[in-house]
Amino acid sequence: MRPVISLLTDFGFSDTYVGQLKAAVLRVAPDAQLVDLTHAVPAQDVRAGAFLLWTAVEAFPSGALHLAVVDPGVGSARRAVAARTHRGDVLVGPDNGLLVPALERLGGLAAAVSLTEPRFHGPRTSSTFHGRDVFAPVVGHLASGVSLEELGPSLERLEAPFSFPAPRTSDGRIEGEVLHVDVYGNLVTNVPAELLPARFDVVMGPARIRGAPHPHYQAVASGEPLALVGSAGLLEVSVRDGSAAATFGVTRGAPLHLEPTLR
Amino acid sequence: MRPVISLLTDFGFSDTYVGQLKAAVLRVAPDAQLVDLTHAVPAQDVRAGAFLLWTAVEAFPSGALHLAVVDPGVGSARRAVAARTHRGDVLVGPDNGLLVPALERLGGLAAAVSLTEPRFHGPRTSSTFHGRDVFAPVVGHLASGVSLEELGPSLERLEAPFSFPAPRTSDGRIEGEVLHVDVYGNLVTNVPAELLPARFDVVMGPARIRGAPHPHYQAVASGEPLALVGSAGLLEVSVRDGSAAATFGVTRGAPLHLEPTLR
Amino acid sequence: MRPVISLLTDFGFSDTYVGQLKAAVLRVAPDAQLVDLTHAVPAQDVRAGAFLLWTAVEAFPSGALHLAVVDPGVGSARRAVAARTHRGDVLVGPDNGLLVPALERLGGLAAAVSLTEPRFHGPRTSSTFHGRDVFAPVVGHLASGVSLEELGPSLERLEAPFSFPAPRTSDGRIEGEVLHVDVYGNLVTNVPAELLPARFDVVMGPARIRGAPHPHYQAVASGEPLALVGSAGLLEVSVRDGSAAATFGVTRGAPLHLEPTLR
Repeated sequence: MRPVISLLTDFGFSDTYVGQLKAAVLRVAPDAQLVDLTHAVPAQDVRAGAFLLWTAVEAFPSGALHLAVVDPGVGSARRAVAARTHRGDVLVGPDNGLLVPALERLGGLAAAVSLTEPRFHGPRTSSTFHGRDVFAPVVGHLASGVSLEELGPSLERLEAPFSFPAPRTSDGRIEGEVLHVDVYGNLVTNVPAELLPARFDVVMGPARIRGAPHPHYQAVASGEPLALVGSAGLLEVSVRDGSAAATFGVTRGAPLHLEPTLR
Repeated sequence: MRPVISLLTDFGFSDTYVGQLKAAVLRVAPDAQLVDLTHAVPAQDVRAGAFLLWTAVEAFPSGALHLAVVDPGVGSARRAVAARTHRGDVLVGPDNGLLVPALERLGGLAAAVSLTEPRFHGPRTSSTFHGRDVFAPVVGHLASGVSLEELGPSLERLEAPFSFPAPRTSDGRIEGEVLHVDVYGNLVTNVPAELLPARFDVVMGPARIRGAPHPHYQAVASGEPLALVGSAGLLEVSVRDGSAAATFGVTRGAPLHLEPTLR
Repeated sequence: MRPVISLLTDFGFSDTYVGQLKAAVLRVAPDAQLVDLTHAVPAQDVRAGAFLLWTAVEAFPSGALHLAVVDPGVGSARRAVAARTHRGDVLVGPDNGLLVPALERLGGLAAAVSLTEPRFHGPRTSSTFHGRDVFAPVVGHLASGVSLEELGPSLERLEAPFSFPAPRTSDGRIEGEVLHVDVYGNLVTNVPAELLPARFDVVMGPARIRGAPHPHYQAVASGEPLALVGSAGLLEVSVRDGSAAATFGVTRGAPLHLEPTLR
């Protein structure tokens, strides 16, 4: 079976960096099945990259490889790492927090190593493109059967310089915030489905969205706001046939709260 | 031989939705050959998606699978469908008109089913992402040899809530409109090659483009307009080394007409 | 082993042109491993495409196929060509200079042919989309074992209507220019690593960047400029955690010079 390798970077689409990354994987593992998650992480925004990686990894088959590169510290003392989850997936990237939420979503850290063995790196070396010269060749070797332990000395833990804000409960209401605005202008919040009351209103600045959770987008009239559990298992605020981000003038970090209501 | 699966959505490139869609196909059919048609269909613009799908399917080998998701009605009562063409291709997506023009281009509907069999759906369910949770797993199963008939009850026909405007002939002239503006600013019209006079002028608002059809872009001087049969088999208006959309200030829906001329 | 085929075009992402190109390759070589380099070459900018292709080809395994289409002369008398390098790679595209720098990077021209044999072209013909109708089928046949020599009559040389400006040495200083601005706003210059003094300043308009070459981005404080050898082996000017293009208001073609300094 062909190994599945996901790719997430902030390399964009107008240079050839993503293509060079893939070429470096395929030099070692020519049969790999490469899947782009996104390459439009805002430049050097490790936290945004970590969120996007977290949203996607669960959709992959167990044992998949995930290569993620958002790496403002490239070339400096930050470590390059590979980490195996309890489910058997392996994530590869810089040790700057990028991989940590996804690791936790996949069952937590089972083993990790520092990628110091040069024989598993590429033929070129640069101080600016470890994606091509370190991470991608390592992923190729993992896809070809090299074990994690051969890649370098083991690590007890990864760096975790940030975490996503958890929702808080206060005075019977749930306080959260917007973690991500997606392509449709949906506001993806940090409130997981498990925490939601049976019926509630969402209050965001001066706006109140009544009757949540809505079953689907068509439960309200065109142009009206709604709130439902989105595909990541988090509460999302949307506008039917429109953009909630534009309607409410809201971006990442905006606060909101939920008020439980009677039926 | 590896099954070829095309993908067309309005998911954009900045989220991980396309990656999750592909992961859900590969969970079932790890050997599939996935080909992106585009993921930049304007958000929820079913009609634009239908046009773009129509432009592309004929380039694929017979028997290809086509997964298309532009789905503002996701989670509501709209059906999820798979449809086989007389040529043997299978299209999968929402029953909202998105698939219909492509179906017709590939020889017309041979059989269709409603995707109600949950054993061919994915392990997660959501009310917002049937691409990942219904359509992609179904495509994976089709690629792995499951027959269309197993996926759910058969349908007599698909919904066809819209169609592309046909050109009209009036007073000896052909009246058409712009269906699509491409990346170069070319104006793709609804006038097929078969309908074109031997020689004609194109009149669009105050502009008149003489001497059509032109054999290729270099038949006029740089910066000059021209009209030729484009790669979709439709008349296109272009500007050499420039953008016809910008030059003429024209967008989708703009009317134009053709006047036959003597040689 | 699956043949690796890279793809570089100016087709963008909002049409289905790239998908049609891939479909045309897969019709002939269904098992190919397709790798996008970029499809965001500025429309019809052959020179920019040639630079981007040049940056990427070396990352691929020897014997890879490279399909490049930036082709304002499509349909006119310009030739369609395939060219083999001394390393064994094959490049396919229009004979307008697009392929030449990459060919030279891969060891230079070993053999070239004009793609005039219609039996290796696709089933459709158009005057606007030789990517789908000529180049992609030819690449598919090459991937399937057809030899270069079968594709058409051999050529002594390719057209080379432009070349990248070489840096000049004058009065002990090295004068260069910006060849490319990348997604991060890094200014990629035409000065190769081999030409750099041990220590130098970079002077660009009124700005002077001292202490180059810097070992990595973190060698300066956040927001400060630096200069280092980038992943293409060329001197790049960057701003840590920022954009050099925005900081200096600089675009492609901007001049700069290097002044050697004592340690």
